[in-house]
Amino acid sequence: MVAKNALQRLAEGLSQSGRHMLTTHVYIGTSLDGYIARKDGSFEWLLKFADQAAVDSYAEFMAGIDVIVIGRGTFETVLGFPEWPYDRPTVVLSRSLKEIPPELKERATLSERDPKDLLNELAESGFRSAYVDGGKVIQSFLAADLIDELTVARVPILIGDGIPLFGKLDSDLEFEHERTASYPNGLIRSYYRRIRQN
Amino acid sequence: MVAKNALQRLAEGLSQSGRHMLTTHVYIGTSLDGYIARKDGSFEWLLKFADQAAVDSYAEFMAGIDVIVIGRGTFETVLGFPEWPYDRPTVVLSRSLKEIPPELKERATLSERDPKDLLNELAESGFRSAYVDGGKVIQSFLAADLIDELTVARVPILIGDGIPLFGKLDSDLEFEHERTASYPNGLIRSYYRRIRQN
Repeated sequence: MVAKNALQRLAEGLSQSGRHMLTTHVYIGTSLDGYIARKDGSFEWLLKFADQAAVDSYAEFMAGIDVIVIGRGTFETVLGFPEWPYDRPTVVLSRSLKEIPPELKERATLSERDPKDLLNELAESGFRSAYVDGGKVIQSFLAADLIDELTVARVPILIGDGIPLFGKLDSDLEFEHERTASYPNGLIRSYYRRIRQN
Repeated sequence: MVAKNALQRLAEGLSQSGRHMLTTHVYIGTSLDGYIARKDGSFEWLLKFADQAAVDSYAEFMAGIDVIVIGRGTFETVLGFPEWPYDRPTVVLSRSLKEIPPELKERATLSERDPKDLLNELAESGFRSAYVDGGKVIQSFLAADLIDELTVARVPILIGDGIPLFGKLDSDLEFEHERTASYPNGLIRSYYRRIRQN
């Protein structure tokens, strides 16, 4: 469970208006056949497409984000990176992890909440825009219909097997297509917004 | 096995130059999560996007096609349509079907060949451009690296489960992205060409 004071610390400096509104965002790359990594977790086939245009596009996306939500799998993957890749307060959703390594405690917080409760808690703490990242966490948020914006970049390669971006759902989820950008290296990025009947 | 005279009949009127060159084309629609139909074969969620622009685009594609290859599953599906949907000579790949219904014998031919042998036979019969259609047949042709052009239209809906377009592969298949077209109804169609190291 996230200690309330830890989240409040993460949210420091954010405006605390009366209403609690938080939007959720997925921004991810996949193969043409919909995988975010091979079975062994490798994604060198995807990194080949990470040129300056992709870096700029990610920076533009991140400029609108004030908190990041990832799962244990993604957390353990990024622990293996040369440096911590997220430059926003990060919540690691896990019921099995015991604690965040000391050197990351300023950057990441552990939570056992379910997706909906976590989002309510983040909204109450003053966060406005959450980046939901990592295969299992994205699937669980989509299954609970908790993703507002979905941005998918597809690279022009079929890898045949791997960790899929999308999973099972209880019912269809319709999106509005906002725009699609094509790049010279063959990457196509489409921006979608969830259509909800309110 | 395709009787040679039947295929020659289908190819009547096509130019018979010295070289045998046949290109293969996939042109298909999927959900955002990569399904071509639900588990029960239904695709009403996809047909909602079949507006005049989609009809025109299909007609433009078909103008370059002179033979169609489908499998038993697709054959049995289209037998349930009000009328036979293909206006080109069609080969039904199946080892279990015994024969084509008499009223379709002018339009369709049965073949037990494997994909590569069939393509050689079609090329020798004078065909130049094959439309490969239907989930299992597309997967088997991709697995044998026998698809030259791949056109995928994605509609902005997640259906969560169904019959996937893509399947397992022995190795990665890289494509060149040629162009992507966006439509007001949210459909995005991307045109890819297989990159082969010759």
